Amino acid sequence: MTEDIQDLVIAGSGVAGLSAAVYAARADFVPLVLEGDEPGGQLTLTTDVENYLGFPEGVGGMELIQRGKEQAEQFGAEFQHGSIESAEFDGQPLKLSLSTGESLRTRALIVATGASARWVGAEAEDELMGYGLSTCATCDGAFHRGDDVLVVGGGDSAMEEALFLARFADTVTVVHRRDELRASEIMADRARDHGGVEFAWNTELLAIDGSQEEGVTGATLVSHPDGYPTEKYEAGEDVEIEELDVGGVFYAIGHEPNTDFLRDTPVDLDDDGYVQTSTAGDTWATTATAADGVFAAGDVMDREYQQAVTAAGMGSMAALDVEEWLESAEAASTDSTGTIPTEADD
Amino acid sequence: MTEDIQDLVIAGSGVAGLSAAVYAARADFVPLVLEGDEPGGQLTLTTDVENYLGFPEGVGGMELIQRGKEQAEQFGAEFQHGSIESAEFDGQPLKLSLSTGESLRTRALIVATGASARWVGAEAEDELMGYGLSTCATCDGAFHRGDDVLVVGGGDSAMEEALFLARFADTVTVVHRRDELRASEIMADRARDHGGVEFAWNTELLAIDGSQEEGVTGATLVSHPDGYPTEKYEAGEDVEIEELDVGGVFYAIGHEPNTDFLRDTPVDLDDDGYVQTSTAGDTWATTATAADGVFAAGDVMDREYQQAVTAAGMGSMAALDVEEWLESAEAASTDSTGTIPTEADD
Repeated sequence: MTEDIQDLVIAGSGVAGLSAAVYAARADFVPLVLEGDEPGGQLTLTTDVENYLGFPEGVGGMELIQRGKEQAEQFGAEFQHGSIESAEFDGQPLKLSLSTGESLRTRALIVATGASARWVGAEAEDELMGYGLSTCATCDGAFHRGDDVLVVGGGDSAMEEALFLARFADTVTVVHRRDELRASEIMADRARDHGGVEFAWNTELLAIDGSQEEGVTGATLVSHPDGYPTEKYEAGEDVEIEELDVGGVFYAIGHEPNTDFLRDTPVDLDDDGYVQTSTAGDTWATTATAADGVFAAGDVMDREYQQAVTAAGMGSMAALDVEEWLESAEAASTDSTGTIPTEADD
Repeated sequence: MTEDIQDLVIAGSGVAGLSAAVYAARADFVPLVLEGDEPGGQLTLTTDVENYLGFPEGVGGMELIQRGKEQAEQFGAEFQHGSIESAEFDGQPLKLSLSTGESLRTRALIVATGASARWVGAEAEDELMGYGLSTCATCDGAFHRGDDVLVVGGGDSAMEEALFLARFADTVTVVHRRDELRASEIMADRARDHGGVEFAWNTELLAIDGSQEEGVTGATLVSHPDGYPTEKYEAGEDVEIEELDVGGVFYAIGHEPNTDFLRDTPVDLDDDGYVQTSTAGDTWATTATAADGVFAAGDVMDREYQQAVTAAGMGSMAALDVEEWLESAEAASTDSTGTIPTEADD
């Protein structure tokens, strides 16, 4: 009895995974794309994408994902539900255990599992995400010219988002649970020195008002005059509750790369769990990880840019890197029949 | 009298330059895009782009460029004819002398001037480029299922293109002027060992037959039985002339990055003239060059991938890097009025 070995599994069906699938499928591999827990990835949380080159009128986040999936399928990519629960990378073929209970063997793997923005837990955030509530100022700031907006967070990325939003918004208020910033001195100074950025200290975002039709119209803040809260707000506490009219809310409390399944593998992760890829030569990073045959693309390895178009670019790079890797591996091996004998399962 | 200083000049109007322009303009800079000698860049030589994520039916190379330009203009990017003839990067502002005779001053520059594929000089190549004649197997190989195709060149990239094309084409013939390959041993071995790849040694491509309607239908080769030619073929020489039916011709004799104007600047170029960008941290390359305020994106700094979607990704990265750089520079300087006094011109 033999068990099929895939040439290439792509974990994740966001922009990076889809772009990798288009390239790999068009090169006549038959990549198997695992759709993951959030098929389509972060972009499906975005209503309008205005900055992905090629769409002068903009394109819906979901629509771009659907178009990309159609494109990958047209060249022969296959899609399957599920995500990777655990992986063994100590030799060929790579072994993957899926959330569906299934196992897979593959020569190469592209990790495109993304990074999920952390959510605050405010009321109505599920409904309003992508409709005035956003996790990306670079993406959605331009929709808020003349609005009053909130940025939730206190780190460097919150400061960056606040400064960026101050280009468009009438007022930007940074809502922070503590009374001091986690941000680096220089970023904190820039935000504090900027006339357009205000701060609400010791303050939590309790609820967001609005609808998918109207967008965000307001927010409810809870501030703690006695210092920052250690627990989530509960009704009856000694607090000040304020209702604000705002046109936009931006979450900037970090991202969580989806790399738990890589913890016990040779793939290098940085302190925050992002995949580390190697650099080839002096000038350009390839998408190879420390595990032979394992590549990474998109937000899961890029904490810096995290844009749709950068993820698409890296996905294509990963597929091209895999092609080259598979070709070398094939050339190095005389046994490349696509199947290896395994024992029966029962 | 004062002379305006731009925030950002983008040199080049290919995919990388346009994506940078979209991002920078949407961030409320007013980037000035110099269209360069070949407005729209290499993609304008491609008829159908099938692998740019988001276009399941494919998109014309020229159409994608036009859509990108429209998108950048919508956000306020400005376009101007001309390219950079020489540049001075020894302090702020950067100074640029243009092919139009004009001078520009700018705080930041994104070099997106691309790399031009070398052409052979065969008859009808101007007419057939993009219509069965191509400089990119990754881009156009999939259009040649079942065809007989030629690859012109003898280096590593020619071997790669030949091996890649062998997935689709019926036969692949490498046409090489010499009787041995410049390619690395390993790539040469792979190509020689591949049953689908043949070689025509000491041979030049003289002419390509076909039309824009029919595509490439044939090619005329000149082979020199006495060894490789040192001069271009002239009628009357002792040679063998062969007419072949082929459905595609791929040029793989290298690319020439458009970086002459950077030779006497602090920007680091590699031996082949590609711009070297720095790497930030261990995992990801930024687009910064060795010259303060000068960034690079696309084929001019990426000799490895050179795809439309990778160039678009890097363009957006360059714009984000510039944003951060301008913001730091602004914060560091108290004098950021946007104009500096200059002497009158007359």
